[in-house]
Amino acid sequence: MLQKMSDTIKFLCADMVQTANSGHPGAPMGLSDVLTVLSSHLKHNPKNPNFLNRDRLVFSGGHASSLLYSMLHLWGYDISLDDLKNFRQLHSITPGHPEYKETPGVEITTGPLGQGVANAVGFSMASKYAKTLLNKDSEIIDHNVYCLCGDGDLQEGISYEAIALAGHHKLDNLVLIYDSNNITIEGDTSIAWSEDVKQRFNAASWNVLEINGHNFEEIDQALASAKSSPKPVLLIAHTLIAKGSASMEGSHKTHGAPLGNDELSKSKKLAGFNPDASFAIDDDVLIRFRSAIEKGDMYEKLWNNTIKESKPETKELLSRLQSPDFSNIKFPEFKTNEKLATRASNGQVLNAISDSLEGFLGGSADLAPSNNTELKGKADFPVGPNMHFGIREHAMAAICNAMSIYGLFIPYSGTFFIFSDYMKNSVRLSALMGLRSFYIWTHDSIGVGEDGPTHQPIEQLSTFRAMPNFYTFRPADANENVECWKIALSKDSTPCGFALSRQGLPTIDSKKTKEASKGGYLLENDTDATITLIATGSEVELALNSAKELRKEGKKVNVVSVPCFELFCEQSKEYQQSIINPNTKRVAIEAASGLEWYRFADEVIGMTTFGASAPGNDLFNHFGFTVENVIKTVNEL
Amino acid sequence: MLQKMSDTIKFLCADMVQTANSGHPGAPMGLSDVLTVLSSHLKHNPKNPNFLNRDRLVFSGGHASSLLYSMLHLWGYDISLDDLKNFRQLHSITPGHPEYKETPGVEITTGPLGQGVANAVGFSMASKYAKTLLNKDSEIIDHNVYCLCGDGDLQEGISYEAIALAGHHKLDNLVLIYDSNNITIEGDTSIAWSEDVKQRFNAASWNVLEINGHNFEEIDQALASAKSSPKPVLLIAHTLIAKGSASMEGSHKTHGAPLGNDELSKSKKLAGFNPDASFAIDDDVLIRFRSAIEKGDMYEKLWNNTIKESKPETKELLSRLQSPDFSNIKFPEFKTNEKLATRASNGQVLNAISDSLEGFLGGSADLAPSNNTELKGKADFPVGPNMHFGIREHAMAAICNAMSIYGLFIPYSGTFFIFSDYMKNSVRLSALMGLRSFYIWTHDSIGVGEDGPTHQPIEQLSTFRAMPNFYTFRPADANENVECWKIALSKDSTPCGFALSRQGLPTIDSKKTKEASKGGYLLENDTDATITLIATGSEVELALNSAKELRKEGKKVNVVSVPCFELFCEQSKEYQQSIINPNTKRVAIEAASGLEWYRFADEVIGMTTFGASAPGNDLFNHFGFTVENVIKTVNEL
Repeated sequence: MLQKMSDTIKFLCADMVQTANSGHPGAPMGLSDVLTVLSSHLKHNPKNPNFLNRDRLVFSGGHASSLLYSMLHLWGYDISLDDLKNFRQLHSITPGHPEYKETPGVEITTGPLGQGVANAVGFSMASKYAKTLLNKDSEIIDHNVYCLCGDGDLQEGISYEAIALAGHHKLDNLVLIYDSNNITIEGDTSIAWSEDVKQRFNAASWNVLEINGHNFEEIDQALASAKSSPKPVLLIAHTLIAKGSASMEGSHKTHGAPLGNDELSKSKKLAGFNPDASFAIDDDVLIRFRSAIEKGDMYEKLWNNTIKESKPETKELLSRLQSPDFSNIKFPEFKTNEKLATRASNGQVLNAISDSLEGFLGGSADLAPSNNTELKGKADFPVGPNMHFGIREHAMAAICNAMSIYGLFIPYSGTFFIFSDYMKNSVRLSALMGLRSFYIWTHDSIGVGEDGPTHQPIEQLSTFRAMPNFYTFRPADANENVECWKIALSKDSTPCGFALSRQGLPTIDSKKTKEASKGGYLLENDTDATITLIATGSEVELALNSAKELRKEGKKVNVVSVPCFELFCEQSKEYQQSIINPNTKRVAIEAASGLEWYRFADEVIGMTTFGASAPGNDLFNHFGFTVENVIKTVNEL
Repeated sequence: MLQKMSDTIKFLCADMVQTANSGHPGAPMGLSDVLTVLSSHLKHNPKNPNFLNRDRLVFSGGHASSLLYSMLHLWGYDISLDDLKNFRQLHSITPGHPEYKETPGVEITTGPLGQGVANAVGFSMASKYAKTLLNKDSEIIDHNVYCLCGDGDLQEGISYEAIALAGHHKLDNLVLIYDSNNITIEGDTSIAWSEDVKQRFNAASWNVLEINGHNFEEIDQALASAKSSPKPVLLIAHTLIAKGSASMEGSHKTHGAPLGNDELSKSKKLAGFNPDASFAIDDDVLIRFRSAIEKGDMYEKLWNNTIKESKPETKELLSRLQSPDFSNIKFPEFKTNEKLATRASNGQVLNAISDSLEGFLGGSADLAPSNNTELKGKADFPVGPNMHFGIREHAMAAICNAMSIYGLFIPYSGTFFIFSDYMKNSVRLSALMGLRSFYIWTHDSIGVGEDGPTHQPIEQLSTFRAMPNFYTFRPADANENVECWKIALSKDSTPCGFALSRQGLPTIDSKKTKEASKGGYLLENDTDATITLIATGSEVELALNSAKELRKEGKKVNVVSVPCFELFCEQSKEYQQSIINPNTKRVAIEAASGLEWYRFADEVIGMTTFGASAPGNDLFNHFGFTVENVIKTVNEL
């Protein structure tokens, strides 16, 4: 029966790929035996994909999406046979790679290799902290995290980073199932890989089990043993890619292309299936997989009882974690006689948020003292919310993605803005998924100073502004910083990045900065102005000083601060033109590439080269961020 | 004497940081003992930093730059005591992190952690291939590659990727010296790391030696043994951060801040140095370090003899590798009746280049069949120029950076354009260093189709256009593709990326595409045009089709193709306006975020959201890349 169940999965997947004439049949066929057995271990509720205490199942090899969709259908999630037939078509709920929020039961978006492994570590860490908070009098949280991955996932650096952190934290609820089929796109893995994977994971304090991934008994025993391990477990499942295909088992040609109708028919025939039937699921198979519904219902009922019987304060905490209330946050207010780096004001904001939200947690990739990301007086993970991610930016962001999805937490992660480069794809995935996740990026320009051009962002603002569904805030001072956070917290499906200064910036009157809610506002407004100076972050001070000098020449000048370019772009043309009058001479000033400012400005004073190593003020002078140069630029227009 | 030499280094470094009032004294002081001994093992020529057969020395922890500069000065490179005193100042040759081309003897720019480890693997691989090509009748290439790294470097995913590849290729000339001081910025490494590093490197097929990094004898023996290892060697040197400071040994406070004058004086006194003297180098110390000059001169003379005695064909090959001649490349020409994906035409160009340049080498991060990066009929590295990087985009780019610097090779690296995200910081470093390195980025837009939004670039074109000293080519067809390569090869200090289509594109007459050399040109030119359509890559076809329809409405239309935005921006305003007439209605069409096009266009038809999973043509229709939408947009202006 298990074999028939597994074969049903195989051909569902191969049929999906064949019908779409696009996709990846090899991995799903190689993994169907493992999934058949995993079915009986998995604790989940197909009728409530959001059941908090469910096991999380992550497909790090997102190209095996047909396998995930097939399983979800077989288990009884709200995904029909027609949905499977619509694989990879416009508006279908079965896209080429699994997408969070698009398909019931898909835990997280995967596809870019390695991400899912780090996400699984994130789910597991979230679960560990949930236990700290909630398992006071009973086991409210006691689920596992399963992750399927392939050679590609393990070769990627991001997975190494996450694996090291998982071992460090002894994540005992994590089972990583490694589909070891020795095949990559360019051929056998041995062309580029000769690592002892078992030894590598042992070095990272994991337990490692090794099995024949096509032996049901071995799979079952390994999963049972994995669940009771006091450490994270790597389950190496030796498999054949495209197992069950008539003549293509083990071939890298099955990785990313349909088997072909002929091969598919032959394979079905060999397995005793009707070679002419597609998307066939016999009742005896379906009934076995669908038992997940009844079991899931039972899991959730038991869990609801556990909740009912727990202490009132635990129930209240759970409710607060699930529905965070931002209205109680006591944001700091800053006086205009203070000069403060926005990295410093931001540290105060983080602490203020943490003081009213138990689910707010985060940290840095080993730069907490520089990023001001520490939550003062609070303990380190897993006892408290302060995370030490180590020097692992990419995994940090992917871990936070999963934490944000988990259902209880709001994560933030910090590093120097330049190292957003290292975490780029994970940040992108947070935007694609529409997550609430915050990026604290300090040392935001040549203001970094002596550390030099390797540490000075130039193109990063343009990068994140160009990325859909993301807000990049660059506040001009501490009070704008607060306003940016208010906007950021009001967005429940758009991640936000904060580009913050290393150096002190003068504080603007908080009555003015309250206007920042539309992304850009008039900081100074002359009647009949003929000049508009537009700036962000540390260059707002320069714009204000330049305006002062221009007024001495008898000119009328508006000064516009734009702490969020994306938000300003979303406003009506009328609003935009009321702030940046198109009939004035418009100069944008930003210590970055600034290409996107030509949308609103006649001229841009930006960075056309990389920075240099020198004290920050010397660099601003050297690269033309001076009152003289602003005046010259205005006068040349 | 060794102790005095080492102490001299320590205080030079600490004095530099103190004078600059900025920098990192901890690591240099912890490593001075290792460097003192390494001095006698290193084969180099201070009077000719470009001596081909020199050992390469990479400081992956670039923040230890004061140590590197001190050594270079002591060894006799062209870097004076005044240069050391000018540490981290504007226009000095001693910037905060080591920068290639800025300082004689600095092999490569480092600072972003992990890069240097991958760079060292790149130097080592370059050396290995150089041996294949040149060591036919004698040992023309027989040097080592040394790399110093810290905990941070090893925690980064990029270093894991590179280490795995180094083990795979048994790079026997590579010695990675790991400064194991157990200190990171947030505190003891144990807050985020509990890995068995030795076991991890053994798993990757490295030899591992472990020593007390303050015991001269142990260091010396380990280095001697490392040089004869048949595998890459990790030398774990247990050290104390800020070793030799009076009261701050082992403190993470010494990582990124000066010791303070008081502490520095006390430390000097303790070591028997004059506490009031700064930048002091006694003659007996200097004379020992400066022996590097005489030895270096001898190394190079011997090597010159080896060259002299080698076969003429070897000498000729060496000369061709050192001064590649692009004039012999037989570029393909494509007929207008062909419809070809630019990834396919690009594959032909790569092969054409390879046929005349022995030093042209590269490959993909396991996507060669999709990226068309294979050099047909040629062998795999290290026998031939085809590289299999494995699924390791970040390390791939960093390895190519070093290969480009090595002195004999021109590297290219391929992946899907979306995965440029994974390699971003290494690409940036190639631009900062001004290297000749080529990035083959196929599957450049929603044209990717069914793989969906995780695989469809949106913001990547904006990212690389915003990055200084980089050309992002997006050719509209096979013939533009050839022209782009001609431009790219003509740049000897600007790396180039090629964003190439997965899908077929109609071929443009090569007489027209020859005008591409200024980045943008008039593809179609109506007299008295009132409309200009601007497009790149696959959208040029749409622009041409739209123009055709607009003409049916009696309108006069210019069509501009811009295969290289950056190059077009470099042209004179007159040229730009002769191509994009500002008095016409200007619409830019690009299946990407397109924010930067407002510089030249009134309106942009671009992507304001992520893509979706569906056949490519369905997506172009869905997202408004249709003749109807172009006409509508033009008419609304």
